[in-house]
Amino acid sequence: MIKRLCIIGVGLIGGSLARALRVAGACGEIVGAGRNPDHLQQAVDLGVIDRFETDIASAVQGADMVFVSVPLGSMAAVFSALKDKLAADAVLTDGGSAKASVVAAAGQAFGEVPDFFVPGHPIAGIEQSGVAAAMPDLYRERRVILTPLAHTDSRAVTRVRRMWEAAGAVVTEMDPAHHDEVLAATSHLPHVLAFALVESLARLQDKREIFEYAAGGFRDFTRIASSDPVMWRDICLANGEAILHMLERYSADLQTLADAVRQHDSDRLLEIFSTAKQARDAYVDSHTMEKT
Amino acid sequence: MIKRLCIIGVGLIGGSLARALRVAGACGEIVGAGRNPDHLQQAVDLGVIDRFETDIASAVQGADMVFVSVPLGSMAAVFSALKDKLAADAVLTDGGSAKASVVAAAGQAFGEVPDFFVPGHPIAGIEQSGVAAAMPDLYRERRVILTPLAHTDSRAVTRVRRMWEAAGAVVTEMDPAHHDEVLAATSHLPHVLAFALVESLARLQDKREIFEYAAGGFRDFTRIASSDPVMWRDICLANGEAILHMLERYSADLQTLADAVRQHDSDRLLEIFSTAKQARDAYVDSHTMEKT
Repeated sequence: MIKRLCIIGVGLIGGSLARALRVAGACGEIVGAGRNPDHLQQAVDLGVIDRFETDIASAVQGADMVFVSVPLGSMAAVFSALKDKLAADAVLTDGGSAKASVVAAAGQAFGEVPDFFVPGHPIAGIEQSGVAAAMPDLYRERRVILTPLAHTDSRAVTRVRRMWEAAGAVVTEMDPAHHDEVLAATSHLPHVLAFALVESLARLQDKREIFEYAAGGFRDFTRIASSDPVMWRDICLANGEAILHMLERYSADLQTLADAVRQHDSDRLLEIFSTAKQARDAYVDSHTMEKT
Repeated sequence: MIKRLCIIGVGLIGGSLARALRVAGACGEIVGAGRNPDHLQQAVDLGVIDRFETDIASAVQGADMVFVSVPLGSMAAVFSALKDKLAADAVLTDGGSAKASVVAAAGQAFGEVPDFFVPGHPIAGIEQSGVAAAMPDLYRERRVILTPLAHTDSRAVTRVRRMWEAAGAVVTEMDPAHHDEVLAATSHLPHVLAFALVESLARLQDKREIFEYAAGGFRDFTRIASSDPVMWRDICLANGEAILHMLERYSADLQTLADAVRQHDSDRLLEIFSTAKQARDAYVDSHTMEKT
């Protein structure tokens, strides 16, 4: 049971955690913090948070759990603003989509990464953003990856794990660098590819016609290109190395496929497409809870 | 009103047309043709067709409308099999996803492209295939592009147009080559990219873990990689030139994006992602019927 939860950055991610914990009765007071008082007032009006502060130092006072869900590029500034104001029993955690960069930001702000900081990443999200989209079941049966360091206090890890479990999530642990590689492959690369495709088509002369004739497959494929550009810019800056590695690998594979098209290599094309379909169908089968 | 419709290739596309026309009362008898009698019997059992023939020459006899919905690579053989057996008043049309190659196949089979042949392409489809997935509303408010040639009989075009309109579709006309360019951009390229991504990830050592941590965005992005590999091999062979052109353009854009990541070019990344989001949101807004 969390007595006072402070959420810094009350958007989809932070707001949905607040809603989930409230529904679960796993949390006392919820204090929101952020820069925009209008957004924060909206969060109060929606019943997502109890009250808010625009000053981070005031917001974290007396909170036994502090959850930072701001774009990756703002993590360092937030850590610096709260570092001397945390309660003695406070646990600090975050929801950033890349972990090595958040760990580095914490190290920079605190001098060294504090043992009460538990880096985390809820693998959930929709292309909408903002507190109005927050929903109590966003994390239900979804993965949350925690990436504690060797010296992280195991009791802090347990408290963060229990918080996410109360929100309905399935919690696992992983090394920060490994997390960043896995997410580069399954999330960051697809987002980059979808953004690049829509931007590429938007520069075509007959783009109006192009989009007019796009069908359902295109809509699904490009859904993630409606995600928040600032968040994704920050992810590309924060996890650039792993993303570049995956991008280069993918580009090479795309050239192999282009060669097969160029050479009318029927067998090779069928092999690539069949392997993909089998892997994709197996993936969907193994995720029955998310079957479409 | 079609008196006897012959559908060659009774899968999702042909089967859904049959179901739609039946619901609309726009069609008398429906005869199915194909190679696999078990599949055809299933189509009869499901009420999609009235009867079937495995011999194409027999199937088209007495039909005033013949719809060919087989993979692009099989079009030429089907045209050759039916060419001397069509009724005097028969109109021939197809549902192939690339049009120049089907026109060429018709020209090859008939000596020249017959004036009663109306090339067509219903832009609808889901990643499932097979007659069991056929549904009467697959084409409702979806686009069908007809690509008649200069010498195509305008009465034949009108009859095909009315058939699709009876199925609920919105029919437009376009030059075959232009159709192939538009579809390369909006459909063929995204499919190729999705197949390539899943195949690329499936070759990673830790692929089980990778797929395990994939979230909803990945599921949507890769849905089209569950499409029929044979159909997509044939599309890549039939529309290779336009697909290669789009692939090369896209690969170059991907390199620009990779450079921006490499150089930590924050402004450039934000610009690419913002342009994409705007274009994608505008596209969804303009397709209210397909809003997600």
